[in-house]
Amino acid sequence: MPERILLQADYILTWDGELKLITQGEIVIEDSLITYLGSRQERPAENFGRVLKIRDSLVIPGFVNTHTHAAMALFRGYADDLSLQEWLQDKIWPAEAKLSSEDIYWGTLLAIAEMLKGGTTCFADMYFHMDEVARACLESGIRASLAQGLIGTDKIKGELGLRQSRSLVQNWHNEGEGRITVMLGPHAPYTCPPDYLYKVGELAGDLRVPIHIHLAETRREVEESRREHGKTPVELIAEVGLLEHDLLAAHCVHLAEADLGLLAAKNVAVAHNPGSNLKLGSGVAPVTELLQKGALVSLGTDGAASNNNLDLLEEMRLAALLQKGLREDPAAIPAETAFKMATVNGARALFLPAETGQLKVGAKADLAVLKIDKPHLSPPHSFLAHLVYSAAAADVYLVMVDGRVLMENGHLLTLDEEKILFEAPPRAQRLTE
Amino acid sequence: MPERILLQADYILTWDGELKLITQGEIVIEDSLITYLGSRQERPAENFGRVLKIRDSLVIPGFVNTHTHAAMALFRGYADDLSLQEWLQDKIWPAEAKLSSEDIYWGTLLAIAEMLKGGTTCFADMYFHMDEVARACLESGIRASLAQGLIGTDKIKGELGLRQSRSLVQNWHNEGEGRITVMLGPHAPYTCPPDYLYKVGELAGDLRVPIHIHLAETRREVEESRREHGKTPVELIAEVGLLEHDLLAAHCVHLAEADLGLLAAKNVAVAHNPGSNLKLGSGVAPVTELLQKGALVSLGTDGAASNNNLDLLEEMRLAALLQKGLREDPAAIPAETAFKMATVNGARALFLPAETGQLKVGAKADLAVLKIDKPHLSPPHSFLAHLVYSAAAADVYLVMVDGRVLMENGHLLTLDEEKILFEAPPRAQRLTE
Repeated sequence: MPERILLQADYILTWDGELKLITQGEIVIEDSLITYLGSRQERPAENFGRVLKIRDSLVIPGFVNTHTHAAMALFRGYADDLSLQEWLQDKIWPAEAKLSSEDIYWGTLLAIAEMLKGGTTCFADMYFHMDEVARACLESGIRASLAQGLIGTDKIKGELGLRQSRSLVQNWHNEGEGRITVMLGPHAPYTCPPDYLYKVGELAGDLRVPIHIHLAETRREVEESRREHGKTPVELIAEVGLLEHDLLAAHCVHLAEADLGLLAAKNVAVAHNPGSNLKLGSGVAPVTELLQKGALVSLGTDGAASNNNLDLLEEMRLAALLQKGLREDPAAIPAETAFKMATVNGARALFLPAETGQLKVGAKADLAVLKIDKPHLSPPHSFLAHLVYSAAAADVYLVMVDGRVLMENGHLLTLDEEKILFEAPPRAQRLTE
Repeated sequence: MPERILLQADYILTWDGELKLITQGEIVIEDSLITYLGSRQERPAENFGRVLKIRDSLVIPGFVNTHTHAAMALFRGYADDLSLQEWLQDKIWPAEAKLSSEDIYWGTLLAIAEMLKGGTTCFADMYFHMDEVARACLESGIRASLAQGLIGTDKIKGELGLRQSRSLVQNWHNEGEGRITVMLGPHAPYTCPPDYLYKVGELAGDLRVPIHIHLAETRREVEESRREHGKTPVELIAEVGLLEHDLLAAHCVHLAEADLGLLAAKNVAVAHNPGSNLKLGSGVAPVTELLQKGALVSLGTDGAASNNNLDLLEEMRLAALLQKGLREDPAAIPAETAFKMATVNGARALFLPAETGQLKVGAKADLAVLKIDKPHLSPPHSFLAHLVYSAAAADVYLVMVDGRVLMENGHLLTLDEEKILFEAPPRAQRLTE
């Protein structure tokens, strides 16, 4: 049971309708919620189960990673600098075919360990053996939105996937005091025919859960969609009704002008994955245009086989830098926008309650504390700028999810990091032999 | 006096004509040089001043940052998300006008502290009050190539700069047992008229030192050069003879086809600054084309006012990812190429002895040791891939320059980090008030 916690810090940075920076402030956490946030008050220490007075500290909302395949951490560094075709067909798919449910469990734990240490408090996963992923999430205490990846090209496997997804929702949706939620995960328009996508939409409506899909990731995907269906991938999934549901669309790199308008008008949540899109040679998503149209843009790492880390700070920085550099406009994606993409937009993209992803009274206490007594974070001109343009995952000193401290001073409190680092390598080697 | 050191590590990664990965190896360092590198031998511990047996470790050559303005660390986070014009004219230049020599000293120490902690063992600086920069380098023990920034538009200041540069060479070139070298630093073709650049070239020949210049950084610079001189910046400096000297050219973002050939044919060393070029909205240098022509491409951070950190790992990753993403070719700039850019190419770009930037017998012992017992560096499929695509500055555990340990387990051994973090902020505030 989470205890009553008082957290005092030098700086508290959040976005709550506008950017807020509180100096010498404090946060009171009761059960899973923030019940006070502001300047310091007279508060007897005995009223708290824990008092965390952290010197030289900056508190921010925890990062939300809105698109990954956690267990692919087992394939980190296994296949790099290859064409997408070789990467998938010769390397990733054969290795994935050998994955056991125990592999998925340990791979997911490896990913969660990394994410927690870097300040990520919530992630959206799409993979398989999702019961094992849920088990790993539950044990770690992290918040997660889980989707079984569905492939619709094989009729029998497609139907099985839908049944498994239904079970996943029944068994896991809102488990772990609500930390675990479930989505349906049709892999992509090019692996799920229109009639199958229509069924997925029906099931999502029936179960009242959102949908998580890969969309318009590569130029080739769009060209093939136009050739086969006479439509872009966005138009195709619009036609089968998916945009009428709560929809999280990962990548969205290659969009036509009409696609941009559709995604914005239908409140589709975009998971922008700048690192993976660069590394696989997919390109750069038109984030500025999406934001100009009013679309919701969040950030994802994708799996560690194509990133190769799960570091939201890196994605946040990359998202801002890419738009500035490629548009030759240093004012594109200012620091505040990048910060929102990594936090509050992420929570919205996972269809979590409105106040999640922010630090405010009534919000879930999902937060990260960074230590700022470091050369690369000095002098203190702007901690927002330092966070977006200079900070690193290793600056994260403490992480709290749902009011519970999961990492402190580099140590994971709910996971056995040594055991994870012992279990992962032999599994990774067996899978890639 | 550096002592005789034995360093044992799990992995030693270097490039020495080809990529080398030694497992369970060791390095012997005597005075400033590597005298053995290979598998472990019977060696009595009493033969060594220090025995460093570092578990879960990866040794690499130290990173070489070939373009920065170290003391601008004082302006980190002061001016972001602004057009280049506003950034320079309204923010940076007025703040720089207030810089005292003591500010430069402390700002440089702040930068060196950050660089050492992130595995950088050598950097090329262009700024002013360079005696103070040299003093900071000497105290820290880092290797550096220093250039006074020269502006030729004002005749009197231009002449003064040349005289100061001559003094800098006389006073500091090859000081600190050779760790400090000096270049001439004509700021850029647009701030140094052709006749002045010609004089700089003459002086460089006279003093036998290389030249460090900003070149073709922005689209506007190239357009103005064409309008005023009928030539690209590269053609312009070629005409005044600068390409006949040892030349380090920073940025090289906007290059014509003929420029690419010229830079390669004349063995110009390019300092690619991907982070700064993106952040200031300058664009992305044609690195793949430069490499295809046979040009030498190294990596720089530029100053922390436009980066905003001095992290060569970040630049290395960005250099690789950008070429892959923008060319839609995941095989562009493979990990080995990126690694070379950050190490051996950097040493060559600073015209250091041929073996510098590599780990080999006879080379200067400039190296970094990373701890690899971390989730984001597991499983051990490829430590080259982990280094380029996943590692972080904070993974650096030990740094040695010229055979001397300057940082160990996060602690700087030659610098007083606490004092630097105490001195820098009030100076930064005064400068930006």
